[in-house]
Amino acid sequence: MIKVYKIGGALVENEALRESFCASFAELEGPKVLVHGGGVEASALLSKLGIEAPRYEGRRVTDAPTLKVVTMVYAGWCNKSVVACLQKHGCNAIGLSGCDGSVIKAERRPPIRLSDGSEVDFGFVGDVSPRSVDGALLLSLMDLGLTPVLSPVNHDGQGRLFNTNADTVASSVAAALGAELCCRFELDGVYARKGDPSSLIETISEADFEALKASGAVSDGMIPKIKTCLDALRGGAAGASIGKTRICL
Amino acid sequence: MIKVYKIGGALVENEALRESFCASFAELEGPKVLVHGGGVEASALLSKLGIEAPRYEGRRVTDAPTLKVVTMVYAGWCNKSVVACLQKHGCNAIGLSGCDGSVIKAERRPPIRLSDGSEVDFGFVGDVSPRSVDGALLLSLMDLGLTPVLSPVNHDGQGRLFNTNADTVASSVAAALGAELCCRFELDGVYARKGDPSSLIETISEADFEALKASGAVSDGMIPKIKTCLDALRGGAAGASIGKTRICL
Repeated sequence: MIKVYKIGGALVENEALRESFCASFAELEGPKVLVHGGGVEASALLSKLGIEAPRYEGRRVTDAPTLKVVTMVYAGWCNKSVVACLQKHGCNAIGLSGCDGSVIKAERRPPIRLSDGSEVDFGFVGDVSPRSVDGALLLSLMDLGLTPVLSPVNHDGQGRLFNTNADTVASSVAAALGAELCCRFELDGVYARKGDPSSLIETISEADFEALKASGAVSDGMIPKIKTCLDALRGGAAGASIGKTRICL
Repeated sequence: MIKVYKIGGALVENEALRESFCASFAELEGPKVLVHGGGVEASALLSKLGIEAPRYEGRRVTDAPTLKVVTMVYAGWCNKSVVACLQKHGCNAIGLSGCDGSVIKAERRPPIRLSDGSEVDFGFVGDVSPRSVDGALLLSLMDLGLTPVLSPVNHDGQGRLFNTNADTVASSVAAALGAELCCRFELDGVYARKGDPSSLIETISEADFEALKASGAVSDGMIPKIKTCLDALRGGAAGASIGKTRICL
């Protein structure tokens, strides 16, 4: 069974946490893929460079200067830092963005039409789905003993790079490979009471998810994480978890 | 016969020249590898960020902030821009830095001891040689129909990334693969009279090189380029050229 790990936040950007994650990821037996984000680092560099892309309802539009920064941070610094760290721990990692071997193709997100008739164009934001993933190439690389480490920068085959959502990349890859999706972040799973590790939830089904949202026990950043897992399962992933919390349909 | 192309300067950093190079590189028959630099872009970002690393006799020391910028620019923006452009032109490129599959290992450059007893430490500057290159992995990737595109960021296997010289990477790869080294830049070869395309030199041997240096016909940036070709040939490369000028021992 292939395992697809998704890491984000401090696991990518904090050196000590990255090191400790990489050490344990390197020890996992069997074929595996790692997908990472890197948003905090990208925001810091954008701010240092005085690049302020427009936002629409909190979602950042990726204009050309933002795309360049995102590519430098995700495909460059974050990707190579993680790969070099995995190599140190004995895992033969290979860092890939979607253009590499055309492993993941993205489609430019269509502009949204607002009620006043105007359009919001997200620029170089791309969408991916399980169909976007060249699973055969990932398997060939794993057959060579390599562990793919994917950045969320993908391409359209027409020479354009796109900023894509790392969670969606992970769920698409897990679905395409019929793999188990394992989302990891700073906490050890989903809590019923915010900040209380003793309230760790063992299993969340699709029905539980609706109830947890309605009660407010699950909110903010946890909602897209659980949705990502459900998407992966609906798309063909063999299993999904967020830390120690198992997600099922 | 495998061909190893090295491009630098405007061929990497100017969008129109990159596009035109990628279109013709994509059409080359047979197995091939591309090695690129990206120094101008890196200098521009360093300057925008106000990072001023110390220099010693014109050579920049790579301190930690410089390494991060260099990794972002070379392994991130330049590498993925070139790969996406090659994909557009039908070449199934895969961008790699040395840590990826541990394809190239670098050794930290030893500090230089000055006559006054003090030391100059170049920081995260690494040296590579033909022994540093995993030729078998490059061949396996080419067997999958992939064209490796190498950035000059390499690693030491201990989790550290190093800034290395792209010319040396190219000559080491060509030597390791017994390939032909083809260096390409803005001009169409080595001129006997600076800026005069009618003075293009067809062939330069090691002995010619000494004479050309002595007469001043070959100077500045051309000297390391020719040395790179001679190094490649001495290391086992099957041939070497700079544009249309053939270099031989």
